[in-house]
Amino acid sequence: MADDQWITVAAEPLEQFSARLIEASGAPADIAALVARHLVDANLCGHDSHGVLRIPTYVDAIHRGQLVPDARPALVSERGVTAVLDGNRGYGYTAMDVAVRAAADRAKTSGVGAVAIRKCGHIGRVGGWVEQLAREGLVSQVVVGALGPGVGHAPPFGGAKRTLSTNPWALGVPSRQHSPIVVDFATTSVAEGKLKFARAKKAAVPEGWIVDANGKPTTNVEDFYAGGMLLPFGGHKGSGLSIFASMLGGLSGEGDDGKIGGTMIVALDPAAFGDVDRYMARVDAAIDAVKAVPPAAGFSQVLVPGEPESTSRAQRRANGIPLPAETWRQLGELADQTHVPAMKVVGV
Amino acid sequence: MADDQWITVAAEPLEQFSARLIEASGAPADIAALVARHLVDANLCGHDSHGVLRIPTYVDAIHRGQLVPDARPALVSERGVTAVLDGNRGYGYTAMDVAVRAAADRAKTSGVGAVAIRKCGHIGRVGGWVEQLAREGLVSQVVVGALGPGVGHAPPFGGAKRTLSTNPWALGVPSRQHSPIVVDFATTSVAEGKLKFARAKKAAVPEGWIVDANGKPTTNVEDFYAGGMLLPFGGHKGSGLSIFASMLGGLSGEGDDGKIGGTMIVALDPAAFGDVDRYMARVDAAIDAVKAVPPAAGFSQVLVPGEPESTSRAQRRANGIPLPAETWRQLGELADQTHVPAMKVVGV
Repeated sequence: MADDQWITVAAEPLEQFSARLIEASGAPADIAALVARHLVDANLCGHDSHGVLRIPTYVDAIHRGQLVPDARPALVSERGVTAVLDGNRGYGYTAMDVAVRAAADRAKTSGVGAVAIRKCGHIGRVGGWVEQLAREGLVSQVVVGALGPGVGHAPPFGGAKRTLSTNPWALGVPSRQHSPIVVDFATTSVAEGKLKFARAKKAAVPEGWIVDANGKPTTNVEDFYAGGMLLPFGGHKGSGLSIFASMLGGLSGEGDDGKIGGTMIVALDPAAFGDVDRYMARVDAAIDAVKAVPPAAGFSQVLVPGEPESTSRAQRRANGIPLPAETWRQLGELADQTHVPAMKVVGV
Repeated sequence: MADDQWITVAAEPLEQFSARLIEASGAPADIAALVARHLVDANLCGHDSHGVLRIPTYVDAIHRGQLVPDARPALVSERGVTAVLDGNRGYGYTAMDVAVRAAADRAKTSGVGAVAIRKCGHIGRVGGWVEQLAREGLVSQVVVGALGPGVGHAPPFGGAKRTLSTNPWALGVPSRQHSPIVVDFATTSVAEGKLKFARAKKAAVPEGWIVDANGKPTTNVEDFYAGGMLLPFGGHKGSGLSIFASMLGGLSGEGDDGKIGGTMIVALDPAAFGDVDRYMARVDAAIDAVKAVPPAAGFSQVLVPGEPESTSRAQRRANGIPLPAETWRQLGELADQTHVPAMKVVGV
């Protein structure tokens, strides 16, 4: 189905088409399939900012020499239940796929696994990785951090200089009767994409999102683009989470000249702590308790973290993924350039 | 030094006096010394809400049979790098002292240690424990969580029923050239103490702190005391952190009837991940980078998490701890009741 602004496509052919585009730009078939699966799953989950619209960006990064599409991670070191990987500037998905496996194996053997990655490319929707671990029965936490002079869009709390990236946290808990709990958030007030959107609409942004170049609160989005900053969420609390993510990721050994960062996965196996059936029953009962909470004024129901994504995934699997015509046009252009057969829009 | 409202006392005699009071109410000398040390350190750090004013509350809990002052933790299970302790309803400090040691030992042997505690009493300023681990060179995270119908003061995001406790997170990173990084926050917008204070002053509270019994935003603090709720900080993000803390603490095996919770310590040894000297140099350079950020409008300097506490500790060690006369009166009354010699106020 297509109209002037939106094209609706089914997930499976979109994933195949995406894989062909990624393969045509230099990735081996297995890496292309992995990246395509994560991108389309982000679309399915409703996180279109982390979906197939990223493909042209990745191809640009390859052309600029910033992304090595066929790179695979190398094991730098391992001791006890830890490991450090070097992503070798490949797709972050490639490194994460290995790292998540390594963390899960260690957790299942020793109760906990902690794997750090340096030089890791973009890993997509971070929540997808803790969800994968949750589906293996593991509780987990993934953080990506970067801190340093001029890094990212955010100042530390009380400051007026860009120092912190979006530094996301993802937290996952397995469930037997429900979808996994997946908490997934940037430690900035919002993603920069929302500022771009406000700018295009010439709309003011809510208080608390941004400050100007002097660190003064503002609702004029142009102040952000004139050297302003995106605030950490929740004042000193979000700023502290962002700083800690950088230090935890920094165990990967990444950083120089005042910079520190990297990616860290910590996975815990409930079976190491006691009776796993009793734990899972407690988790499910607790999820039931949260879902039974009456909604506050202005809300129609209380959602468990991860529930909006599960609902969207089911709905979009059935009805297709709506893509902006512009994204669709860019993918078609890339197909032309790389001699990938154009994807036929499959009505859903 | 004393006036009508404040008594200023030196830390050391206050700690000795506190230990005698705690011992006189049933704790062995070593436990009393441990609890007193943590309480007075909270006062030194400027967190008076977690200081010696808690002693009468603890004694009340002992009289009501909720706190067993001479209880010591039992090892429930250990597997791989994990352990589960039962606090046996003793002072939380007693259980944490053992648990932090166990987590640190595991981290130093295997890179990571994860120790969960069930039936753990109040553990005081949570940041104090990650600071202790940081001073041993470890990166760490301590969460305390409780979730269930009617639990605590906070609803989950979008809800209108008390379901979540304050569920604090503490995150620590060692430093060689600075004080450790200590991030320590409640996942509620503020501590309930601030509402008590506003109520006493008959003052309105800022937007975003509380909702009324129907989950409707309000600035009238009386709405909180009429069945209202304290909001999680940062919307769905703080709510997610609070829910995850409950699930992570819940690995201790605590919870029934829709409730889940407990305490979890995860400690990581930088030496397991690579060259510890290079990591510490990166952390110190990153702290320097944060401190060098120019302050935003309305701020005089950028503080690293944990810095306000370190500054307060140095200042109060030198100049004494100011206590409200009412706290001082309560401690004196307790001394009378338990035949502990009254503490002479030491001018500082």
